[in-house]
Amino acid sequence: MAKRTAVIDLGSNSMRMAIFERTSRYAFHIIGEFKMKVRLGEGAYEHGGEIAQKSMQKACEALSEFKNIAQNYKCTKIFAMGTSALRDAPNASELISMARKELGINLKVVSGKDEATFGGVAALNLLEPLEEFVTLDIGGGSAELALVSGGKITDAVSLNLGTVRLKELFFDKKNLNAAAPFIKEAFKSLPKNFKSKNLVAIGGSLRAISSAIMSAQDYPLKTVHNFAYKFQNHKNFIENLARASVLELGKFGIKKDRFDTIREGALIFLGAVDAVGAQNIYTSGAGFREGVFLSDILRPTRKFPPNFNPSVRSLQDRFLLDDNKTIVKYAKDLFAALKPLHGLEGRYESELAVAARLHSVAQCLGFYGEHASSAFFVLNALNYGFSHAQKCLVAVIIAQNGKKTSSEFERFKNLLPSEDVVRWLSFILALAKNLDANCAHKKLEFEFINHTLQIYGAKELFMAKENIKKMTKPDTFAICFA
Amino acid sequence: MAKRTAVIDLGSNSMRMAIFERTSRYAFHIIGEFKMKVRLGEGAYEHGGEIAQKSMQKACEALSEFKNIAQNYKCTKIFAMGTSALRDAPNASELISMARKELGINLKVVSGKDEATFGGVAALNLLEPLEEFVTLDIGGGSAELALVSGGKITDAVSLNLGTVRLKELFFDKKNLNAAAPFIKEAFKSLPKNFKSKNLVAIGGSLRAISSAIMSAQDYPLKTVHNFAYKFQNHKNFIENLARASVLELGKFGIKKDRFDTIREGALIFLGAVDAVGAQNIYTSGAGFREGVFLSDILRPTRKFPPNFNPSVRSLQDRFLLDDNKTIVKYAKDLFAALKPLHGLEGRYESELAVAARLHSVAQCLGFYGEHASSAFFVLNALNYGFSHAQKCLVAVIIAQNGKKTSSEFERFKNLLPSEDVVRWLSFILALAKNLDANCAHKKLEFEFINHTLQIYGAKELFMAKENIKKMTKPDTFAICFA
Repeated sequence: MAKRTAVIDLGSNSMRMAIFERTSRYAFHIIGEFKMKVRLGEGAYEHGGEIAQKSMQKACEALSEFKNIAQNYKCTKIFAMGTSALRDAPNASELISMARKELGINLKVVSGKDEATFGGVAALNLLEPLEEFVTLDIGGGSAELALVSGGKITDAVSLNLGTVRLKELFFDKKNLNAAAPFIKEAFKSLPKNFKSKNLVAIGGSLRAISSAIMSAQDYPLKTVHNFAYKFQNHKNFIENLARASVLELGKFGIKKDRFDTIREGALIFLGAVDAVGAQNIYTSGAGFREGVFLSDILRPTRKFPPNFNPSVRSLQDRFLLDDNKTIVKYAKDLFAALKPLHGLEGRYESELAVAARLHSVAQCLGFYGEHASSAFFVLNALNYGFSHAQKCLVAVIIAQNGKKTSSEFERFKNLLPSEDVVRWLSFILALAKNLDANCAHKKLEFEFINHTLQIYGAKELFMAKENIKKMTKPDTFAICFA
Repeated sequence: MAKRTAVIDLGSNSMRMAIFERTSRYAFHIIGEFKMKVRLGEGAYEHGGEIAQKSMQKACEALSEFKNIAQNYKCTKIFAMGTSALRDAPNASELISMARKELGINLKVVSGKDEATFGGVAALNLLEPLEEFVTLDIGGGSAELALVSGGKITDAVSLNLGTVRLKELFFDKKNLNAAAPFIKEAFKSLPKNFKSKNLVAIGGSLRAISSAIMSAQDYPLKTVHNFAYKFQNHKNFIENLARASVLELGKFGIKKDRFDTIREGALIFLGAVDAVGAQNIYTSGAGFREGVFLSDILRPTRKFPPNFNPSVRSLQDRFLLDDNKTIVKYAKDLFAALKPLHGLEGRYESELAVAARLHSVAQCLGFYGEHASSAFFVLNALNYGFSHAQKCLVAVIIAQNGKKTSSEFERFKNLLPSEDVVRWLSFILALAKNLDANCAHKKLEFEFINHTLQIYGAKELFMAKENIKKMTKPDTFAICFA
């Protein structure tokens, strides 16, 4: 039932579009992202927010191309939302009617509070599970903050603090010293309840800072979504970045197309961390556009049903030839039965279960190297609702396929539990797979007595026996098929 | 229209099954492979080929499990074929009627000539394009050779030379010295026309030898199918392997489950290379089972239509959201128009075209890291009909995405043309992609005059212009949108 939705976000700096594909009721993934530097806010901050005719023309051209792309992708819905620049502009209605008349696009102006809430919806549903946090989404014209407490969005505000705004008001005029007090002043209007040790960083500037930190420390994953760090450890780096000259930015690991406004972004970020009292930063690749999309599919609660994960389900919908239910059950039961032997914490059961469900996700790509490929799929697509540590663990359990160790283990070592833990989890999954090697989906029962794993109901599993005989066990015990 | 076919191969040593999924008329890929060591030939060579009751029982159990798997995969056809051990056995009919009565499986005995022909069909259709070669498929009980000349199978024979046979007749009796003359004698019956400088190596033993050579030289790809080498360069290695003691086999990079018969395989291989006069060895991961499957779908010619590649088409069927025809056309036209500048050989156009067609093959996995993921898909699934060098070039053109170089280039350097060539091809693809960034599928024309690439019909491609402005060109020239 693949249905596609386009969400267009007309900001002060750029116009962006994300195309979401839904593979079942709540499962989705993004299949395309597009960006054009429309610079709607260019020159506007000194002219009462008035959008220049040239910018308006550019916005229409971009909208037209985006619409064409959305149609080409057969999107059945297009949401087009204007944020800060459009809110500020006395001549916004001109652009809105151009969009409607010339393109048939219903361009909506989003209030600052709603914009902040959309960011909160994205973070709440798509980050690793967190109950208490403040989101910060820095745009070209404004910054949005949402307060989440007890797993609910309890407040949301928008401040007139954006990268392009700061650039035009201070940086372009070489009047940098006035920027910090301006930011401090703006954060004074932040309600006093916006306090949290967790800050969720949304938007291109903050993603660029996270990417720079990741590459500086040779981080083993490339995905910026869900990259978390302690602010204290990188405070100097961010302060130096904010004070750097343009020529120095490359040294900070910042990409060229961010040079124009990264320092402004860093300054606002520093102000927000201070105002919120944040210690832990969680990077979110998902923000406003995801929030708009989710608010549509998750009406009225704006939350996924309990225990639902959109990435797991969407991987299953797209790629799995089998739901692997038998193997998930064997893996869980084996984890419980072998507990006296492995002694692992109960929390690992959930990563084991996800690994069991997705272990064959790349079977569709071909039989050869299936474990490594499935791990690759997990590393690249198990993005929502899992921390990096969880995602890597799931991938390595699959890749290692019951072996003692793996190149994947070495690669992600710093994010993983000990070699022993990984080996046990991977062994249990491989054992579970082998027990269903003939796809008989038997009702098996497991018991561990006298140093022996008794497997009841397995007498006629000849292929299983042959495969299991070849396995190397992580500890000394016997396996008996009864 | 995904249709699945199971091909079961009941050999002297093991029973194997491959499950083929067809995604369109001729396009297919393998989604599962299964193996059980039935050892049908065990002890038979000294008892007039008679299959022991125990082995027969084991074969039936394995067949039953295989049938269950095939049904679970919803295979609409099951081909079950018995080879050497069944041909030799005076009591074969007993097993055949057991299979029919107890399992409803029609187990066919394949003649030696047909078995050899099936191997030839697989090599001819699934290896990199070769017109002249001899295939050698070493099994447990026999070795099959097919002669291909002018792109056609012109002869096929089976010799009673198998690894299990040699093991039982000579190795198990510590009578190794008698093995070589026995092999030499057997090859005397090979028709004199079986001469070629190209030998295609099929079967587990020869794949194991290729794998060992690959890991000894730190080969950058893991796929053994289409791994090619000069026999002369590895002659000593193979001779030493044939003479090694079991305890030494690990040092040769041979996996444990091959220890029992790898030396026998190496000996037969040496005999064949000598008899055929081969210089170049091409490893084929495809053999008897693929030949059976192909002979069914490619009736009556047993060849794919001209210019058809099953891997490209099957990747397209499975994963592509768009057929990328516009981008393929732009890439080809740009390659031609920019010829005065890049001066590349015309043959690179075909890899460029395949890269253009498959550049977005991993878009289904998600937008982030799409180039690297698409390259991964190509490296893992573009297996049939391409040499390793071609496959790597296609992958790196995609991964590099117009950049100067890439980690993928570094990794596959030894298999690739020069950095300049790769950079140009990758630049052309990135340019072609950007020109269709808005999916308008315009009719564009290209001309290179006065150090300027003129692009006609591109005036309104705003996104294209913005993206192309950011590209780094591999040489000094202007781009003009007219």
